Amino acid sequence: MSAFEKLVSHSQKIAHFNHLAAICGWDQASMMPSGGNQARSEAMAELSVHVHSLHTQPQLADWFAEAEQESLSHDQTASLRELKRQWQQANLLPEKLVQAKSLAGSKCEHAWRTQRKENDWQGFEKNWAAVVALSQEEAQIRAEANNTTPYDAMLDIYEPGTTSASLDATFNDVKSWLPNLIDQVIDKQSKENVIEPTGQFATEKQKALGLEVMKLLQFDFEHGRLDESVHPFCGGVPSDVRITTRYDENEFVQSLMGIVHETGHARYEQGLPKSLAGTPAGEARSMGIHESQSLFFEMQVGRSDAFISHLASLAGKHFNNANPELFSQHNFQKLYTRVKKDFIRVDADELTYPAHVILRYEIERDLINGNIKHTDVPELWNVKMQQYLGLSTEGNYKNGCMQDIHWTDGAFGYFPSYTLGAMYAAQYMAVMKNTVDVDGAIRSGDLSPIFTWLSDNIWSKGSLLTTDELVKQATGETLNAAHFKQHLINRYLKG
Amino acid sequence: MSAFEKLVSHSQKIAHFNHLAAICGWDQASMMPSGGNQARSEAMAELSVHVHSLHTQPQLADWFAEAEQESLSHDQTASLRELKRQWQQANLLPEKLVQAKSLAGSKCEHAWRTQRKENDWQGFEKNWAAVVALSQEEAQIRAEANNTTPYDAMLDIYEPGTTSASLDATFNDVKSWLPNLIDQVIDKQSKENVIEPTGQFATEKQKALGLEVMKLLQFDFEHGRLDESVHPFCGGVPSDVRITTRYDENEFVQSLMGIVHETGHARYEQGLPKSLAGTPAGEARSMGIHESQSLFFEMQVGRSDAFISHLASLAGKHFNNANPELFSQHNFQKLYTRVKKDFIRVDADELTYPAHVILRYEIERDLINGNIKHTDVPELWNVKMQQYLGLSTEGNYKNGCMQDIHWTDGAFGYFPSYTLGAMYAAQYMAVMKNTVDVDGAIRSGDLSPIFTWLSDNIWSKGSLLTTDELVKQATGETLNAAHFKQHLINRYLKG
Repeated sequence: MSAFEKLVSHSQKIAHFNHLAAICGWDQASMMPSGGNQARSEAMAELSVHVHSLHTQPQLADWFAEAEQESLSHDQTASLRELKRQWQQANLLPEKLVQAKSLAGSKCEHAWRTQRKENDWQGFEKNWAAVVALSQEEAQIRAEANNTTPYDAMLDIYEPGTTSASLDATFNDVKSWLPNLIDQVIDKQSKENVIEPTGQFATEKQKALGLEVMKLLQFDFEHGRLDESVHPFCGGVPSDVRITTRYDENEFVQSLMGIVHETGHARYEQGLPKSLAGTPAGEARSMGIHESQSLFFEMQVGRSDAFISHLASLAGKHFNNANPELFSQHNFQKLYTRVKKDFIRVDADELTYPAHVILRYEIERDLINGNIKHTDVPELWNVKMQQYLGLSTEGNYKNGCMQDIHWTDGAFGYFPSYTLGAMYAAQYMAVMKNTVDVDGAIRSGDLSPIFTWLSDNIWSKGSLLTTDELVKQATGETLNAAHFKQHLINRYLKG
Repeated sequence: MSAFEKLVSHSQKIAHFNHLAAICGWDQASMMPSGGNQARSEAMAELSVHVHSLHTQPQLADWFAEAEQESLSHDQTASLRELKRQWQQANLLPEKLVQAKSLAGSKCEHAWRTQRKENDWQGFEKNWAAVVALSQEEAQIRAEANNTTPYDAMLDIYEPGTTSASLDATFNDVKSWLPNLIDQVIDKQSKENVIEPTGQFATEKQKALGLEVMKLLQFDFEHGRLDESVHPFCGGVPSDVRITTRYDENEFVQSLMGIVHETGHARYEQGLPKSLAGTPAGEARSMGIHESQSLFFEMQVGRSDAFISHLASLAGKHFNNANPELFSQHNFQKLYTRVKKDFIRVDADELTYPAHVILRYEIERDLINGNIKHTDVPELWNVKMQQYLGLSTEGNYKNGCMQDIHWTDGAFGYFPSYTLGAMYAAQYMAVMKNTVDVDGAIRSGDLSPIFTWLSDNIWSKGSLLTTDELVKQATGETLNAAHFKQHLINRYLKG
């Protein structure tokens, strides 16, 4: 067995344990009764210690050194690059720091669940200080290893290859036109009339509707399923993808589009190259590329006129078309494109969402680079919220800097992925339309040509290409946010 | 840390991995789409290799030697006995033999699924020859270690402390009265009229009924759940017990009592001593004692007049009492106590079931001890089936010796547990009635006094006592099959 083969085999072994973690994690969120949590958490922690020990076995260094001397194919070289990247990430941090950050994050997050409700910044800030300090320590170690700034080293965890220099350029451009566009759209929409769903929309009916929409999106039910959880997610493994949603019986709008979103994540996972299963090269490219798939499904396909027409008629069918005006295509279009300046990112619409992300990006970048203190965050949040969305969060911590879970755990560097995903999705669609009759395919109910394009260009590539290579091969250029801007103008101003 | 503490800590580590195996195994049987099976099986196999490596770490021998010199409490001594037993079982067999038997078993079972349908004894016999030979080899190694006969060494896996000498005595007695009792009961029942359920019994309604019956049986839903699978089972972990059933929309009788049966297994698991969690002393005593709980629930409680009365009225409520005669207590009593001589063990009633078990016991005992050849089995089956139940299986392999899954995998020594469980259950009930108003408790709908007795005498003991000690402490004597005989006479002849 060559050293490269040994590395692949070792990676597959780790993947087997990660498989069990993924299924037990899904179960914990969607099936497990609350009394099972203590023993489950202990079992998961034991597994995670074991996986860490596999990642840090001493012979791996020799195998990597040998493998780099071996004669490898093009794909094997890419696979080795990803194997090495994963190994380096796993070995970079002293175990003491990993444990300290995990403990501080758990403590901060646990208390945050109460503190947020009580708008208790003083209490939160005390726990969060440790999370920020440990994250800065982590970023410093990563920065030295990567020879970058601390924040860029954190970005690299989620978006390998992306730098704050490139994000600054992209996001500064967005900031130059987005606030004005939002105002124009809100003004335009103020003259429109939307019928909101009222009444009782039984969970069973919502689920049946969701499953039918997943079929339309060609979710592979031989390799996955739909369940419920408090926070919707896409989990499991590529051969068995588990997506979840939550149902609110007072309305169906959120959950329905949530299912479309998670189906995008799921089809990416289901479409990853099977020949590379169990190795990092066979995994999704990055968080941003993952989000580009969920947002392609949700924003590019899901909110298109042609797809909205399917959603309206399917919803009408499942809810016995109690109110024909509510279930009209025209009303559905309006329901799914309403724009509102508001405080909460997770509830934000497509147009205001980037403002929420840019705000967080700018703050976390300066925080991790040590240019601001964690106690500066509420005031900075307030200033930027006024600037981008005209809203004050003074004294309103729970709807300000305490609203998200990410920072409580020290997941700095993750937020940009959301908007990068939206931008990539718009770019794919602009290019896809050159060769695929997208609207025709959606209208016909057979969306295969769209999925073939995504499979050929994104899903089947796994992580064999870098993000820039992947996007350039698919669209002829690296990230170009002009497509996103044009998409927003077309949908919200011209539409 | 003392050597004993090291052993306990190591056992808890193994238990964490077994926790993940239990949940992923449950998922595989009840949730997983078929396309996920390949990757899941690989992940489970990897886990099982890892657990085996934990059981066979070389330092354990030293720890056991040291721990045996340490000053231990009474419970710690019992715990050490069980730890050592588990360790010895895991280390007894050469890994080559374990793998060979596992492969031969998988091959035999896989082919059997088709061969059974086709009544293909010739095909089956070829694969089964290897399973039998490897099982004999295993039994021989175990026999030398335990200083017993080969079959007794296999029995010891499932029923530590039980020997074929004691089983022979018990079962020979049963054989002296059972065939005659069966004939008398069938004659008595031939004059009775039973109304069979007809129509459509929706899965959702059956499930709601099942959940209500589980509540009556005080299943702890904070630490467990009910789902569906092709073959009903009780899985999961004590803090999160997963029971399953299968629904047939043409009738509800089987599934309903199946839920009562699995709830018995589940309450045993939920009631195991939490202070010993993660160690063998905190696990269920044996397969026979486990079955004594499921059969106590199903046969002693579930088929009692008082409980049947609850079942009849709850079923009437859930199925809108479409047919009052069907849902009468009197009819339910008859539905749940019908006796019939038939071929299939898993479909057998309470009275004929022991005949099926004794037949298998006698054959597998002689087979493993090398007194008969595997090719002798069909003819022996036929002879014994005629003797015990008056049925011929000549040429009818699929309803004869090819009907069960156990032997295809080489699980020789398991079958007696079923009838031992039935006997223990009858013995508990006879003794329990001396101090507990069992019928009054069931009729009142608050069965707590019954469960308190079971918890105090069985569940809370885990494996701290040997089976004989456990049963003697609970009932004042070791296994006494006279209670079982009396129970059958009371229910089927006098009732």
